[in-house]
Amino acid sequence: MNGAQAVIRTLVGGGVDVCFANPGTSEMHFVAALDDVRSMRAVLTLFEGVATGAADGYARMAGRPAATLLHLGPGLGNGIANLHNARRARSPLVNVVGDHALTHKRLDAPLESDVDALAGAVSGWVRRSLTTGEVGADVADAIAAAARGQVATLVLPADVSWGDGASVAAVPARRPAPHPAPEVVDDVARVLGSSTVLFLGGGAVGEAGLRAAAQVAAGTGSRLLAETFPARMARGAGVPDVLKLPYPPDAAREQLAGVQHLVLVGAVEPVAFFGYPGTDGRLVPSGCTVHVLATPAEDAVAALQQLAELAAPGATPAVADARRPGLPTGALELRTLAEVVGALLPEHAIVVDEALTSGRFLPGATVGAPPHDWLTLTGGAIGQGLPAATGAAVACPDRPVVSLQADGSAMYTVQALWTQAREGLDVTTVVCDNGAYAILAAELENVGATSGGERAGQLLDLGGPSLDFVALATGMGVPATRATTAEELATQFRTALAEPGPHLIDAVLPR
Amino acid sequence: MNGAQAVIRTLVGGGVDVCFANPGTSEMHFVAALDDVRSMRAVLTLFEGVATGAADGYARMAGRPAATLLHLGPGLGNGIANLHNARRARSPLVNVVGDHALTHKRLDAPLESDVDALAGAVSGWVRRSLTTGEVGADVADAIAAAARGQVATLVLPADVSWGDGASVAAVPARRPAPHPAPEVVDDVARVLGSSTVLFLGGGAVGEAGLRAAAQVAAGTGSRLLAETFPARMARGAGVPDVLKLPYPPDAAREQLAGVQHLVLVGAVEPVAFFGYPGTDGRLVPSGCTVHVLATPAEDAVAALQQLAELAAPGATPAVADARRPGLPTGALELRTLAEVVGALLPEHAIVVDEALTSGRFLPGATVGAPPHDWLTLTGGAIGQGLPAATGAAVACPDRPVVSLQADGSAMYTVQALWTQAREGLDVTTVVCDNGAYAILAAELENVGATSGGERAGQLLDLGGPSLDFVALATGMGVPATRATTAEELATQFRTALAEPGPHLIDAVLPR
Repeated sequence: MNGAQAVIRTLVGGGVDVCFANPGTSEMHFVAALDDVRSMRAVLTLFEGVATGAADGYARMAGRPAATLLHLGPGLGNGIANLHNARRARSPLVNVVGDHALTHKRLDAPLESDVDALAGAVSGWVRRSLTTGEVGADVADAIAAAARGQVATLVLPADVSWGDGASVAAVPARRPAPHPAPEVVDDVARVLGSSTVLFLGGGAVGEAGLRAAAQVAAGTGSRLLAETFPARMARGAGVPDVLKLPYPPDAAREQLAGVQHLVLVGAVEPVAFFGYPGTDGRLVPSGCTVHVLATPAEDAVAALQQLAELAAPGATPAVADARRPGLPTGALELRTLAEVVGALLPEHAIVVDEALTSGRFLPGATVGAPPHDWLTLTGGAIGQGLPAATGAAVACPDRPVVSLQADGSAMYTVQALWTQAREGLDVTTVVCDNGAYAILAAELENVGATSGGERAGQLLDLGGPSLDFVALATGMGVPATRATTAEELATQFRTALAEPGPHLIDAVLPR
Repeated sequence: MNGAQAVIRTLVGGGVDVCFANPGTSEMHFVAALDDVRSMRAVLTLFEGVATGAADGYARMAGRPAATLLHLGPGLGNGIANLHNARRARSPLVNVVGDHALTHKRLDAPLESDVDALAGAVSGWVRRSLTTGEVGADVADAIAAAARGQVATLVLPADVSWGDGASVAAVPARRPAPHPAPEVVDDVARVLGSSTVLFLGGGAVGEAGLRAAAQVAAGTGSRLLAETFPARMARGAGVPDVLKLPYPPDAAREQLAGVQHLVLVGAVEPVAFFGYPGTDGRLVPSGCTVHVLATPAEDAVAALQQLAELAAPGATPAVADARRPGLPTGALELRTLAEVVGALLPEHAIVVDEALTSGRFLPGATVGAPPHDWLTLTGGAIGQGLPAATGAAVACPDRPVVSLQADGSAMYTVQALWTQAREGLDVTTVVCDNGAYAILAAELENVGATSGGERAGQLLDLGGPSLDFVALATGMGVPATRATTAEELATQFRTALAEPGPHLIDAVLPR
């Protein structure tokens, strides 16, 4: 067995049976081995950022890692932005980066670069495989490392792949996350009350976590807040409705004003996304004590359930009622766009939200829709939505994926649409087309920069020429339509959801 | 004056008056300052790889650096592949990467990442600017570093930009490259003859360098070869026609067989692009002595001129005759595609060649065309062609740019087309549309991987769905047509060249 075959067999044996690939010459043995190991599903992407973003979306929904297959340092570079988002989502991910043969490395060939330095900057675990005999074991270690909620990067030299004498390594069963010590739960129970906020993230914003947290809230008067950009949040009718901490620092501070105890559950202490002149980036009010019920590496659900049993036994969690907005008519604007989504969102939908400024009204319009999962841009590196939707659809072929996508951000990894078409994935993309980097126009003011200048404005404007997302999508094999009124959006959204395979709707918003 | 204003003014004062930008929140003061310093031309790109590739293409044609403006670690990540190509081209480039405010850095906000590690992996010079008072001097140092033929990355924290009390720094005049010591030239002169090859790269493949090298060849019987992927090579009628060392290792070894002295002139010793099982990656035959007339950091033209004066005074360099292929008719295939380009290539064209396997017949078909420059994929990181064509067109608004582009590679940075449309750049893109990663099909065999497997084949195939480059281009505002015969390509290519602004032709090749 050659190294590449052992890599793929060890991956599959360890439960990693999907690989989002963008291979080159140094990965050709891996590609050839796909015909020997048919239980590995290889999904071709046209750009590495699609591969890494898809692996992130896959992991969030499947709860286990996919592999990537990238080509040398430049290929890894192209994947870095979405590896960053995966790192912030604590997504398990086995990032396989092919490299020159060990014998070729010192020749400084044109594609030679410092792969290891790039890998180290975005990975929780990195190893360069050095011998064919041990590459199976290296892969097993990578899977185990990924399972701890991190990007595990295996650098795979071409001659380690093509060498003979490899063997498959067994991957130990995934070890469950640790529970917090009982005294931690006791300590937190003592500070619950109306001036306490449970700040929820990671596993705590899944359905079981939210339910336990809502029981605590119901029984103790504590408030609940979720992190601003959760990796995957359960929402909808019958699920506790928890407000996400707002993105604008002032609005976030308002939510936290007067809080005396902030209890972190699967989340880290909230800070402002960016620094602004003359303001403190920390959001927690002075005088507020921060407690940690569960770190992101611990079992937040178990912690909340223990806390609920101790502090609020028998209390009934409040959940969202089933209610949808009516189908709107008239102008297509942020509110009517959200109402269409809320009115038509199918049961068990996976919503991938990179709508940014266009998403303002989405939470309110969808809170009572049938139960669904909501995936957000965890690391702020735009260009994650279309790839993550792709990966989520691969992970959950029986669930509809709704990809709500800002226009500027869509262009970073627009190649994801081709993979959606090739794989026949059931993804409905709604491009929130306002023709601008609208978020930056706001930030230009937030940072106190002189705004309104014509030349500055040009750098925030996506017009001249306007992007035609219908043409872009159809150019990659995704059927697409354009909606300019609320009625058109409703009709097109309903049709797209009803038909299998990918669709894109260019939702034209006021400029 | 705030830091951002000092940055831009120092750039402009140092001759860097074009900035390829993809900014975010941390760069908003830089953006605002564009209205204060109107001599800086900011060119918006929709993806960072377009910005860095454009800066590379600009530098190759302008002979001086452009700046980039990128957003934090993920933005830098997106730019890495084309920074890698720029590094291999020895292009001067001032790579400005905005980062969180210094006061925000330790909060580990969602977009926090190890910018410095990423920068170090692809830059010849890196500095994190730490105070507003010194940021002007930091920029001056960056420009001086870039002028030495490297990527100079300045990490620019937001508060260094928005702080007051900055000042503009003067940039010292660019120091000319050193000449080799006379005894180096003497030593090389002694080994010239029929078993000697001058291996030319960097400045040596510009017109003056080629002329001096051809004089040496004419007077001494030495042969000339150029590096496989030169940054910018002068070609065409009246220019010495020098063969580039072939990409396939066997063909390269054939060219070098029997050579006893290999003289490097602005190039490094040639090695195989990739390692292959059982073969040595070095290409220089055993027993051949390698000499260095000029390192890439030295003045290769001066070295060649000194050598010509010493070893071949009065010899007449052989140059290519003016001759073009006739306009072909019939099927559109690699040969007829090359003949159309050769028949119609305008004078002083800049050819950006990322045609890869589709470019086989281009050298022969264009050797006698009117004088032109030829830019290639120096570092092997695909997705360089469209951005480099964009930057070259910004550098040389009076010269037509012809962008010969493989289809698979085109998709990595296809967003460049939008910038070409927005800026009205005179770029004619010909997509060599064979519907496959054809180069990988060859490499699958070269590395000895079992080929022909159906699943492996799927990873090299761009069909299902086919990419519609006409739709993609028009979706970004670039007029586009499709050519399926040689006549159609000729008509469309002629029209595109005659009209100002960007055009794209989808040249459909046999599958």
